[in-house]
Amino acid sequence: MKTSCIKTFLLISIFSFLSASLSIAQEKVYTDARELTMVGKAKPIPQFYHRVDTAKYNTMPLGVKRLFTNSAGLAIVFKTNSNSISARWSTLNQRKSNNMTGIVYKGLDLYIKRNNEWVFAGVGRPADNPTTAAIVSNMEDGEKECLLYLSLYDEVKSLEIGVDEGSYIAAMESPFRKKVVIYGSSILQGASASRPGMAYPARMARKLGVDFINLGLSGNGKMEPEVVDMIAGIEADAYILDCAPNPSPEQITERTTYLVETIRKNHPQVPIVMIQSIVRETGNFDVKAREVVAGQNRNFKAEYDKLVAAGVKDLYYIEGNLIGSDHEGTTDGIHPNDLGFDRMLQVIQPFVADILKKYGI
Amino acid sequence: MKTSCIKTFLLISIFSFLSASLSIAQEKVYTDARELTMVGKAKPIPQFYHRVDTAKYNTMPLGVKRLFTNSAGLAIVFKTNSNSISARWSTLNQRKSNNMTGIVYKGLDLYIKRNNEWVFAGVGRPADNPTTAAIVSNMEDGEKECLLYLSLYDEVKSLEIGVDEGSYIAAMESPFRKKVVIYGSSILQGASASRPGMAYPARMARKLGVDFINLGLSGNGKMEPEVVDMIAGIEADAYILDCAPNPSPEQITERTTYLVETIRKNHPQVPIVMIQSIVRETGNFDVKAREVVAGQNRNFKAEYDKLVAAGVKDLYYIEGNLIGSDHEGTTDGIHPNDLGFDRMLQVIQPFVADILKKYGI
Repeated sequence: MKTSCIKTFLLISIFSFLSASLSIAQEKVYTDARELTMVGKAKPIPQFYHRVDTAKYNTMPLGVKRLFTNSAGLAIVFKTNSNSISARWSTLNQRKSNNMTGIVYKGLDLYIKRNNEWVFAGVGRPADNPTTAAIVSNMEDGEKECLLYLSLYDEVKSLEIGVDEGSYIAAMESPFRKKVVIYGSSILQGASASRPGMAYPARMARKLGVDFINLGLSGNGKMEPEVVDMIAGIEADAYILDCAPNPSPEQITERTTYLVETIRKNHPQVPIVMIQSIVRETGNFDVKAREVVAGQNRNFKAEYDKLVAAGVKDLYYIEGNLIGSDHEGTTDGIHPNDLGFDRMLQVIQPFVADILKKYGI
Repeated sequence: MKTSCIKTFLLISIFSFLSASLSIAQEKVYTDARELTMVGKAKPIPQFYHRVDTAKYNTMPLGVKRLFTNSAGLAIVFKTNSNSISARWSTLNQRKSNNMTGIVYKGLDLYIKRNNEWVFAGVGRPADNPTTAAIVSNMEDGEKECLLYLSLYDEVKSLEIGVDEGSYIAAMESPFRKKVVIYGSSILQGASASRPGMAYPARMARKLGVDFINLGLSGNGKMEPEVVDMIAGIEADAYILDCAPNPSPEQITERTTYLVETIRKNHPQVPIVMIQSIVRETGNFDVKAREVVAGQNRNFKAEYDKLVAAGVKDLYYIEGNLIGSDHEGTTDGIHPNDLGFDRMLQVIQPFVADILKKYGI
């Protein structure tokens, strides 16, 4: 019995030692994301995870200010030689909309550069708040350039990035040259992409190498003068206006000229691109829903025509079948799914690429 | 003052009367879905909203039995002349996975026939339990043939369909001829399509006019003998095996022959189609994840080759780049998003259509 006891004790000791060693081998060291580099941001502001300094622009509508605290389009870039990457993060809210995944709403989405292209690596799936989660494991040795997208529809309160103990993690320069501001609705903010990196400005940024600033405002992209003034105050190389989906047809007629002319006044030479609203698939059978979108697009185009006739230069308009003709490109009849977004990009991306080329951006 | 009071009283009365009239005009009459027609079901069973009678096949693994109570692939068909359609439904669970929308997990998805094609009409967004929600409103007059998909990842406890008072709703014959059983994993069950009608068998059914029976089992499509026996007991015109993603490479080698041979024994003439696993985008950088899928596909193909060499006829194998080469076709690295599913269909659907044609199905 005694010998047996000693054997058991020894076995337990060896097991404990092995467990501890394994645990040490898998130990993560966390770095606050604020020590790294952020991309997708209009300008540096005190609130690291907000899109806009809403304390400064405090006359904007309340709904707009709240949405600008969502981290849509923001991403952290860094380099590391770790074989795995994890994250520990918290967001403000517990709720999420039933037309989106938890991952896109309050999760993380990691890309790593390979052969000069950004390649999907893994997601941070939100669970608790804060969540600690592995994003990618078992990677080959060597330095990786990483691009980590933040949640599209929640406010990030804290974010730390974990790498293997003994490896390094460091800030890196933004991989994006130039800056293009896009202003619009929930569709632009990213509803209903499946994960943060699938929002359409994020996809364009990776392909075109340009920093697209996502100013999508769920249900609130309505061209209010206070918001227009804030946007026109951002220094950018081009401005894209995807804001037909939210205002009523009448509001479009009332507000589009002020939006375009204010940007033009502050930035006399830059290209401004207007995009018509996608067709809402709710309008396949709902006659009223169909009429609203038709009215929005009719009026947005009429404003474009008026502005051009009034001599506004370097103004462009994208129209056409943006989400395909099979009616399968939405999650809920209103917001594109990843298939709808892919079709949008097939129209928008080459158009935008041509503009950027034409203006040397 | 007195006259003014009477006027006010009259105005209030008129307003109340108008409100009541409007409210009556919008009153819905609800019909229990069990009085209508169900499609997507392997065979008629006592449990209306379950896919399989798990009381009968009670030796199947517990996880499999639980998943067969999810209503994946089940849909209600009916006709109505109502100008709007709503639903009142309840599901078993409160939870939902963070890689799916609430709509796909526990919601509803309505298609209506137009010019001989099924066209998306609207979704039922889950809120409370039970939820009462409008699916489509403001439709033109006339009879509509409707196809209402149930939630993919929850068990429906009750479902009533609401139409405008004074309109009719009635059962209709299944619009699908023939029956094809598909057995597989979470991907087949529909993770991570954006809504129930975007699961890939549902999309094929609408395009090919065939009733595809969704036997997708999240994480549990592992070809256990008890499950194989149940599947082989279903009368169908073809069998599709999309079950490489869940079993280990070793389990694939152990179990594939029994699966194929048991179906073949019960159904000597029908075509059997095997599909390789999609590449998991987690494997872009995670070497171990990449190796698992490579092993699954290597072994599944080896079993196919052995079966063909052993003289099994009418056996087919689909392989190739199923979700595209840009690595953007998944929600979480594991499950296709609607873009990934669309790409899968571009390979699978023509292959299956050819088989159906060849066998006169």
